[in-house]
Amino acid sequence: MVIAYDGSDYAGWQIQLREKTVQGEIEKALAVLLRQKISIVGAGRTDGGVHAEGQTAHFYADGVWEPKKILASLNGILPFTVRIRSLGIVPESFHARFSVTSKIYVYHLWSEVIMNPLYRHYRWHVGPLPYPEALEEGARLFVGEKDFSSFSNDRFSGACLKNPVREILRLDVIRQEGGLRLEFEGKSFLYKMVRNITGTLLAVARGKISPETIRSLLEGRDRTKAPAPAPAKGLCLKEIKYDD
Amino acid sequence: MVIAYDGSDYAGWQIQLREKTVQGEIEKALAVLLRQKISIVGAGRTDGGVHAEGQTAHFYADGVWEPKKILASLNGILPFTVRIRSLGIVPESFHARFSVTSKIYVYHLWSEVIMNPLYRHYRWHVGPLPYPEALEEGARLFVGEKDFSSFSNDRFSGACLKNPVREILRLDVIRQEGGLRLEFEGKSFLYKMVRNITGTLLAVARGKISPETIRSLLEGRDRTKAPAPAPAKGLCLKEIKYDD
Repeated sequence: MVIAYDGSDYAGWQIQLREKTVQGEIEKALAVLLRQKISIVGAGRTDGGVHAEGQTAHFYADGVWEPKKILASLNGILPFTVRIRSLGIVPESFHARFSVTSKIYVYHLWSEVIMNPLYRHYRWHVGPLPYPEALEEGARLFVGEKDFSSFSNDRFSGACLKNPVREILRLDVIRQEGGLRLEFEGKSFLYKMVRNITGTLLAVARGKISPETIRSLLEGRDRTKAPAPAPAKGLCLKEIKYDD
Repeated sequence: MVIAYDGSDYAGWQIQLREKTVQGEIEKALAVLLRQKISIVGAGRTDGGVHAEGQTAHFYADGVWEPKKILASLNGILPFTVRIRSLGIVPESFHARFSVTSKIYVYHLWSEVIMNPLYRHYRWHVGPLPYPEALEEGARLFVGEKDFSSFSNDRFSGACLKNPVREILRLDVIRQEGGLRLEFEGKSFLYKMVRNITGTLLAVARGKISPETIRSLLEGRDRTKAPAPAPAKGLCLKEIKYDD
């Protein structure tokens, strides 16, 4: 299934015991509808406040069900902050996370002096940016296969070893109403990677660091040296791509 | 001043004793800032749930004040649902309502099967429209100077006589992401006129009435014969125009 949600009122995607989460709401609705306990597997986790237009997830259910009917009933049960955009039967080999070919995240910046109140939950209000060309130059330095240790809040030491190398296929800077959007495409991203990169690009656009500093930040492999992350509300998981 | 607001949490523009209103919030903030009781005069009233990108208002204040400072401080005090976009000193002859040359209202329709949750407070979710051309044909019938009695919730009888004739300068139907927007421009509108016309155009787009029925509804001068109004949340006061 393909899922859109407004993350403002949720403690993120992943189910938690005492917090309202998107996964939790969908599993609860599916349990009511299909009269069985259902666990859904999402393509990726999003943090609290992060939105989605194209999150994906799969699940197994006993019985014979009509996808069209589940889709309509599910949207009838779910709160209006979560919408199932489509739902279908997939081959047993399909896995919402492991079958991903690429993911697209979009970060929205509002760069006017005054914020538009209708976008207050969906854009980061950064005010006028004196060096937009430097931001574009900096964005190009993130594209390719690199060690993103300096731009991730994952832990790469200790018991849980994780590979800090990821490939950004594209990072486009696109002008839009009131500001810019940054479109990130890659097969997978490290924890908080998009928000950390955006925070650094903003420091570049404000002239606080030069685009070249990004090279040394990448080489330094030290999260504590890089600028603060961008807030959750400007981020949206736009699309998950699969082969076919 | 030019004002933008998210009307979702307000009982409309006009100040009321026990309800939270946009005018009430601005007057409260101005009283704190300018240390005097301030009454603001808006270009038009909007109902609860209706949004604005370009509402305007004027006020008188004793003392000498720097508009730039008031603007910044005001946005610092006001909730994020209300933003003052600009503020300046006007000639004494200026009146936010009487000096208006035209107003632009926009009504946003979402015509896909599934709603985008990010737009749930800003679009009317109408689902697929089988007759979009009929809607466009119907929209043209509203343009011009006409008696809009059938499309207003004002009372035209009794003690308070009001002229039911208004002129719609343009009513454009524009395709946009997920659906359509209707742009209404006119010097002034009757109470609920934009929402009533939109409700009727939707009945046309759904094939429930023909575009020609609009002619007889206008001639009939009877609100009870016309279809139900469109809900507040899809409506936005986009711009107020003045001579200069």
